[in-house]
Amino acid sequence: MSEPLRFEDFIVGRKFSFGDHVISEKEIIDFAKEYDPQPMHIDPVAAKNDIMGGLIASGWHLCALAMRLIKDGLFHDTTSLGSPGVDEVQWRRPVRPNDRLTMEAEVLEARDSKSRPDRGIVRFRFDLFRSDAAGKRQLAITYTSPVMIRKRDA
Amino acid sequence: MSEPLRFEDFIVGRKFSFGDHVISEKEIIDFAKEYDPQPMHIDPVAAKNDIMGGLIASGWHLCALAMRLIKDGLFHDTTSLGSPGVDEVQWRRPVRPNDRLTMEAEVLEARDSKSRPDRGIVRFRFDLFRSDAAGKRQLAITYTSPVMIRKRDA
Repeated sequence: MSEPLRFEDFIVGRKFSFGDHVISEKEIIDFAKEYDPQPMHIDPVAAKNDIMGGLIASGWHLCALAMRLIKDGLFHDTTSLGSPGVDEVQWRRPVRPNDRLTMEAEVLEARDSKSRPDRGIVRFRFDLFRSDAAGKRQLAITYTSPVMIRKRDA
Repeated sequence: MSEPLRFEDFIVGRKFSFGDHVISEKEIIDFAKEYDPQPMHIDPVAAKNDIMGGLIASGWHLCALAMRLIKDGLFHDTTSLGSPGVDEVQWRRPVRPNDRLTMEAEVLEARDSKSRPDRGIVRFRFDLFRSDAAGKRQLAITYTSPVMIRKRDA
Protein backbone atom coordinates (compact mmCIF):
# COMPACT_ATOMS: atom_id res chain seq x y z
CA MET A 1 0.00 0.00 0.00
CA SER A 2 1.27 3.47 -0.88
CA GLU A 3 1.87 6.35 1.55
CA PRO A 4 -1.30 7.67 3.16
CA LEU A 5 -2.68 10.69 1.34
CA ARG A 6 -2.64 13.94 3.29
CA PHE A 7 -4.60 17.19 3.08
CA GLU A 8 -2.12 18.63 0.56
CA ASP A 9 -2.89 15.79 -1.87
CA PHE A 10 -6.57 16.61 -2.13
CA ILE A 11 -6.53 19.28 -4.83
CA VAL A 12 -9.91 20.60 -6.00
CA GLY A 13 -11.04 18.63 -9.04
CA ARG A 14 -8.86 15.60 -8.35
CA LYS A 15 -10.69 12.32 -8.88
CA PHE A 16 -10.09 8.90 -7.39
CA SER A 17 -11.40 5.50 -8.51
CA PHE A 18 -11.22 2.60 -6.07
CA GLY A 19 -13.09 -0.26 -4.48
CA ASP A 20 -14.33 -3.57 -5.80
CA HIS A 21 -16.92 -5.57 -3.91
CA VAL A 22 -19.46 -8.10 -5.14
CA ILE A 23 -22.51 -7.97 -2.87
CA SER A 24 -24.22 -11.25 -2.01
CA GLU A 25 -27.88 -11.98 -1.29
CA LYS A 26 -26.88 -13.15 2.19
CA GLU A 27 -25.13 -9.86 2.94
CA ILE A 28 -28.18 -7.86 1.82
CA ILE A 29 -30.51 -9.94 4.00
CA ASP A 30 -28.20 -10.06 7.04
CA PHE A 31 -27.81 -6.27 7.14
CA ALA A 32 -31.51 -5.63 6.59
CA LYS A 33 -32.67 -8.13 9.23
CA GLU A 34 -30.70 -6.12 11.75
CA TYR A 35 -31.27 -2.55 10.57
CA ASP A 36 -33.94 -2.25 7.85
CA PRO A 37 -36.29 -5.25 7.95
CA GLN A 38 -38.60 -4.35 5.08
CA PRO A 39 -39.82 -7.10 2.69
CA MET A 40 -37.94 -5.66 -0.31
CA HIS A 41 -34.66 -6.13 1.63
CA ILE A 42 -35.19 -9.41 3.50
CA ASP A 43 -37.72 -11.57 1.61
CA PRO A 44 -36.68 -12.63 -1.93
CA VAL A 45 -40.13 -14.11 -2.67
CA ALA A 46 -42.17 -11.11 -1.51
CA ALA A 47 -39.66 -8.78 -3.23
CA LYS A 48 -40.15 -10.61 -6.53
CA ASN A 49 -43.82 -9.65 -6.58
CA ASP A 50 -43.16 -6.10 -5.41
CA ILE A 51 -42.57 -2.97 -7.46
CA MET A 52 -38.78 -3.47 -7.46
CA GLY A 53 -39.07 -6.93 -9.03
CA GLY A 54 -36.65 -8.61 -6.67
CA LEU A 55 -34.52 -8.22 -3.59
CA ILE A 56 -32.65 -4.90 -3.28
CA ALA A 57 -30.10 -3.70 -0.73
CA SER A 58 -31.10 -1.21 1.97
CA GLY A 59 -29.96 2.30 1.11
CA TRP A 60 -28.24 2.46 4.51
CA HIS A 61 -26.40 -0.75 3.72
CA LEU A 62 -25.03 0.90 0.58
CA CYS A 63 -23.88 3.91 2.61
CA ALA A 64 -22.13 1.57 5.05
CA LEU A 65 -20.47 -0.37 2.22
CA ALA A 66 -19.36 2.89 0.58
CA MET A 67 -17.71 3.85 3.89
CA ARG A 68 -15.82 0.56 3.93
CA LEU A 69 -14.62 1.00 0.36
CA ILE A 70 -13.53 4.57 1.17
CA LYS A 71 -11.66 3.41 4.27
CA ASP A 72 -9.86 0.64 2.38
CA GLY A 73 -9.27 2.45 -0.90
CA LEU A 74 -8.81 6.13 -0.09
CA PHE A 75 -8.31 6.84 3.61
CA HIS A 76 -5.49 4.52 4.61
CA ASP A 77 -4.37 4.59 8.20
CA THR A 78 -5.23 7.87 9.88
CA THR A 79 -5.76 10.12 6.90
CA SER A 80 -9.33 10.88 7.94
CA LEU A 81 -10.00 12.45 11.33
CA GLY A 82 -13.75 12.15 11.06
CA SER A 83 -16.62 14.04 9.51
CA PRO A 84 -19.42 16.21 10.88
CA GLY A 85 -21.96 14.69 8.51
CA VAL A 86 -23.09 14.11 4.93
CA ASP A 87 -25.31 16.01 2.53
CA GLU A 88 -27.71 15.11 -0.21
CA VAL A 89 -27.55 11.34 -0.07
CA GLN A 90 -29.36 10.16 -3.20
CA TRP A 91 -30.33 6.53 -3.64
CA ARG A 92 -30.45 6.57 -7.44
CA ARG A 93 -30.58 2.95 -8.54
CA PRO A 94 -31.34 -0.28 -6.71
CA VAL A 95 -28.48 -2.66 -5.96
CA ARG A 96 -29.23 -6.37 -6.34
CA PRO A 97 -27.49 -9.58 -5.29
CA ASN A 98 -24.24 -10.24 -7.18
CA ASP A 99 -23.86 -6.65 -8.37
CA ARG A 100 -20.26 -5.46 -8.40
CA LEU A 101 -19.73 -2.21 -6.47
CA THR A 102 -17.04 0.35 -7.28
CA MET A 103 -16.43 3.91 -6.08
CA GLU A 104 -15.43 7.28 -7.42
CA ALA A 105 -14.56 10.34 -5.35
CA GLU A 106 -14.02 13.94 -6.43
CA VAL A 107 -12.56 16.80 -4.39
CA LEU A 108 -15.10 19.67 -4.43
CA GLU A 109 -13.44 22.01 -1.92
CA ALA A 110 -10.37 22.08 0.32
CA ARG A 111 -9.69 24.59 3.07
CA ASP A 112 -7.64 24.94 6.26
CA SER A 113 -9.28 24.28 9.58
CA LYS A 114 -9.74 27.57 11.43
CA SER A 115 -9.29 26.00 14.85
CA ARG A 116 -6.79 23.18 14.25
CA PRO A 117 -3.56 23.84 12.33
CA ASP A 118 -2.80 20.12 11.95
CA ARG A 119 -5.71 19.50 9.56
CA GLY A 120 -7.85 20.77 6.73
CA ILE A 121 -11.41 20.17 5.64
CA VAL A 122 -11.98 18.54 2.28
CA ARG A 123 -15.44 18.31 0.79
CA PHE A 124 -15.87 15.28 -1.44
CA ARG A 125 -18.49 13.95 -3.74
CA PHE A 126 -18.63 10.18 -3.31
CA ASP A 127 -20.33 8.01 -5.95
CA LEU A 128 -21.04 4.30 -5.60
CA PHE A 129 -21.60 2.46 -8.87
CA ARG A 130 -23.20 -0.91 -9.51
CA SER A 131 -22.30 -3.18 -12.40
CA ASP A 132 -24.56 -6.10 -13.20
CA ALA A 133 -23.63 -9.45 -14.76
CA ALA A 134 -24.11 -7.98 -18.24
CA GLY A 135 -21.50 -5.33 -17.40
CA LYS A 136 -23.91 -2.38 -17.38
CA ARG A 137 -22.55 0.24 -14.92
CA GLN A 138 -24.90 2.69 -13.22
CA LEU A 139 -24.67 5.25 -10.44
CA ALA A 140 -26.30 3.63 -7.39
CA ILE A 141 -25.77 6.23 -4.67
CA THR A 142 -24.16 9.64 -4.49
CA TYR A 143 -23.52 12.07 -1.64
CA THR A 144 -21.24 14.88 -0.58
CA SER A 145 -19.38 15.08 2.71
CA PRO A 146 -16.83 17.31 4.42
CA VAL A 147 -13.99 15.25 5.92
CA MET A 148 -11.25 16.42 8.29
CA ILE A 149 -7.90 15.37 6.82
CA ARG A 150 -4.51 15.39 8.50
CA LYS A 151 -1.82 17.67 7.02
CA ARG A 152 1.61 16.43 6.02
CA ASP A 153 4.14 16.60 8.86
CA ALA A 154 1.44 17.81 11.24
CA MET B 1 -49.63 -2.61 17.70
CA SER B 2 -52.03 0.06 16.48
CA GLU B 3 -53.24 0.50 12.88
CA PRO B 4 -50.48 1.47 10.48
CA LEU B 5 -50.29 5.22 9.94
CA ARG B 6 -51.12 6.43 6.44
CA PHE B 7 -50.29 9.55 4.43
CA GLU B 8 -53.34 11.35 5.80
CA ASP B 9 -52.00 10.96 9.36
CA PHE B 10 -48.79 12.89 8.66
CA ILE B 11 -49.95 16.46 9.19
CA VAL B 12 -47.29 19.19 8.95
CA GLY B 13 -45.94 19.93 12.42
CA ARG B 14 -47.00 16.59 13.93
CA LYS B 15 -44.32 15.09 16.15
CA PHE B 16 -43.67 11.50 17.12
CA SER B 17 -41.51 10.06 19.90
CA PHE B 18 -40.51 6.41 19.76
CA GLY B 19 -37.71 3.92 20.06
CA ASP B 20 -35.64 2.68 22.95
CA HIS B 21 -32.38 0.86 22.40
CA VAL B 22 -29.32 0.53 24.63
CA ILE B 23 -26.25 0.20 22.42
CA SER B 24 -23.51 -2.20 23.54
CA GLU B 25 -19.76 -2.04 23.02
CA LYS B 26 -19.98 -5.32 21.09
CA GLU B 27 -22.57 -3.89 18.70
CA ILE B 28 -20.41 -0.82 18.05
CA ILE B 29 -17.34 -2.94 17.34
CA ASP B 30 -19.16 -5.58 15.27
CA PHE B 31 -20.68 -2.98 12.93
CA ALA B 32 -17.45 -1.03 12.58
CA LYS B 33 -15.29 -4.10 11.89
CA GLU B 34 -17.51 -4.76 8.89
CA TYR B 35 -18.18 -1.26 7.61
CA ASP B 36 -16.05 1.44 9.29
CA PRO B 37 -12.88 -0.11 10.76
CA GLN B 38 -11.28 3.00 12.24
CA PRO B 39 -9.55 2.80 15.65
CA MET B 40 -12.10 5.09 17.35
CA HIS B 41 -14.84 2.57 16.44
CA ILE B 42 -13.13 -0.79 16.90
CA ASP B 43 -10.30 -0.45 19.43
CA PRO B 44 -11.30 0.58 22.98
CA VAL B 45 -7.67 1.00 24.08
CA ALA B 46 -6.55 3.13 21.12
CA ALA B 47 -9.82 5.10 21.35
CA LYS B 48 -9.16 5.92 25.00
CA ASN B 49 -5.98 7.79 24.06
CA ASP B 50 -7.59 9.49 21.06
CA ILE B 51 -9.31 12.85 20.83
CA MET B 52 -12.75 11.31 21.55
CA GLY B 53 -11.56 9.82 24.86
CA GLY B 54 -13.10 6.41 24.27
CA LEU B 55 -14.89 4.15 21.84
CA ILE B 56 -17.65 5.83 19.80
CA ALA B 57 -20.16 4.37 17.34
CA SER B 58 -19.69 4.89 13.60
CA GLY B 59 -21.95 7.62 12.27
CA TRP B 60 -23.24 5.16 9.68
CA HIS B 61 -24.08 2.71 12.45
CA LEU B 62 -26.21 5.40 14.07
CA CYS B 63 -28.02 6.02 10.77
CA ALA B 64 -28.70 2.29 10.44
CA LEU B 65 -29.96 2.07 14.04
CA ALA B 66 -32.20 5.10 13.48
CA MET B 67 -33.68 3.30 10.46
CA ARG B 68 -34.45 0.27 12.62
CA LEU B 69 -36.11 2.39 15.31
CA ILE B 70 -38.15 4.19 12.61
CA LYS B 71 -39.24 0.88 11.07
CA ASP B 72 -40.29 -0.56 14.42
CA GLY B 73 -41.75 2.57 15.99
CA LEU B 74 -43.24 4.63 13.17
CA PHE B 75 -43.57 2.76 9.88
CA HIS B 76 -45.38 -0.40 10.81
CA ASP B 77 -46.10 -2.90 8.05
CA THR B 78 -46.10 -1.26 4.65
CA THR B 79 -46.61 2.39 5.54
CA SER B 80 -43.36 3.42 3.89
CA LEU B 81 -42.83 2.73 0.19
CA GLY B 82 -39.22 3.84 0.20
CA SER B 83 -37.27 7.04 -0.04
CA PRO B 84 -35.13 8.68 -2.72
CA GLY B 85 -32.53 9.77 -0.19
CA VAL B 86 -31.67 11.85 2.85
CA ASP B 87 -30.42 15.39 3.34
CA GLU B 88 -28.17 17.14 5.79
CA VAL B 89 -27.13 14.23 7.99
CA GLN B 90 -25.40 15.82 10.96
CA TRP B 91 -23.39 13.74 13.41
CA ARG B 92 -23.69 16.09 16.35
CA ARG B 93 -22.58 14.12 19.42
CA PRO B 94 -20.66 10.90 19.86
CA VAL B 95 -22.56 7.81 21.02
CA ARG B 96 -20.76 5.55 23.47
CA PRO B 97 -21.29 2.00 24.78
CA ASN B 98 -24.36 1.67 27.02
CA ASP B 99 -25.97 4.91 25.83
CA ARG B 100 -29.76 4.68 25.52
CA LEU B 101 -31.03 5.73 22.08
CA THR B 102 -34.46 7.28 21.45
CA MET B 103 -36.01 8.96 18.41
CA GLU B 104 -38.13 11.96 17.54
CA ALA B 105 -39.68 12.69 14.16
CA GLU B 106 -41.42 15.81 12.89
CA VAL B 107 -43.45 16.23 9.70
CA LEU B 108 -41.92 19.13 7.72
CA GLU B 109 -43.95 18.82 4.50
CA ALA B 110 -46.64 16.56 3.03
CA ARG B 111 -47.75 16.52 -0.61
CA ASP B 112 -49.46 14.24 -3.11
CA SER B 113 -47.33 12.25 -5.50
CA LYS B 114 -47.72 13.68 -9.00
CA SER B 115 -47.29 10.34 -10.72
CA ARG B 116 -48.85 7.84 -8.25
CA PRO B 117 -52.32 8.49 -6.81
CA ASP B 118 -51.92 5.76 -4.16
CA ARG B 119 -49.23 7.65 -2.22
CA GLY B 120 -47.92 10.96 -0.99
CA ILE B 121 -44.49 12.28 -0.14
CA VAL B 122 -43.81 13.28 3.45
CA ARG B 123 -40.63 15.09 4.40
CA PHE B 124 -39.53 14.34 7.94
CA ARG B 125 -36.88 15.59 10.28
CA PHE B 126 -35.54 12.59 12.20
CA ASP B 127 -33.57 13.12 15.41
CA LEU B 128 -31.72 10.40 17.31
CA PHE B 129 -30.97 11.20 20.96
CA ARG B 130 -28.47 9.61 23.32
CA SER B 131 -28.95 9.42 27.07
CA ASP B 132 -26.01 8.45 29.24
CA ALA B 133 -26.02 6.66 32.60
CA ALA B 134 -26.40 10.00 34.40
CA GLY B 135 -29.58 10.63 32.41
CA LYS B 136 -28.24 13.51 30.35
CA ARG B 137 -30.05 13.53 26.97
CA GLN B 138 -28.39 15.02 23.88
CA LEU B 139 -29.09 15.15 20.16
CA ALA B 140 -26.73 12.62 18.57
CA ILE B 141 -27.72 12.71 14.89
CA THR B 142 -30.30 14.61 12.87
CA TYR B 143 -31.33 14.47 9.21
CA THR B 144 -34.24 15.19 6.93
CA SER B 145 -35.70 12.77 4.40
CA PRO B 146 -38.62 12.59 1.99
CA VAL B 147 -40.50 9.30 2.35
CA MET B 148 -43.20 7.88 0.07
CA ILE B 149 -46.21 6.96 2.22
CA ARG B 150 -49.25 4.90 1.24
CA LYS B 151 -52.64 6.65 1.30
CA ARG B 152 -55.58 5.28 3.21
CA ASP B 153 -57.76 2.90 1.14
CA ALA B 154 -55.33 3.20 -1.77
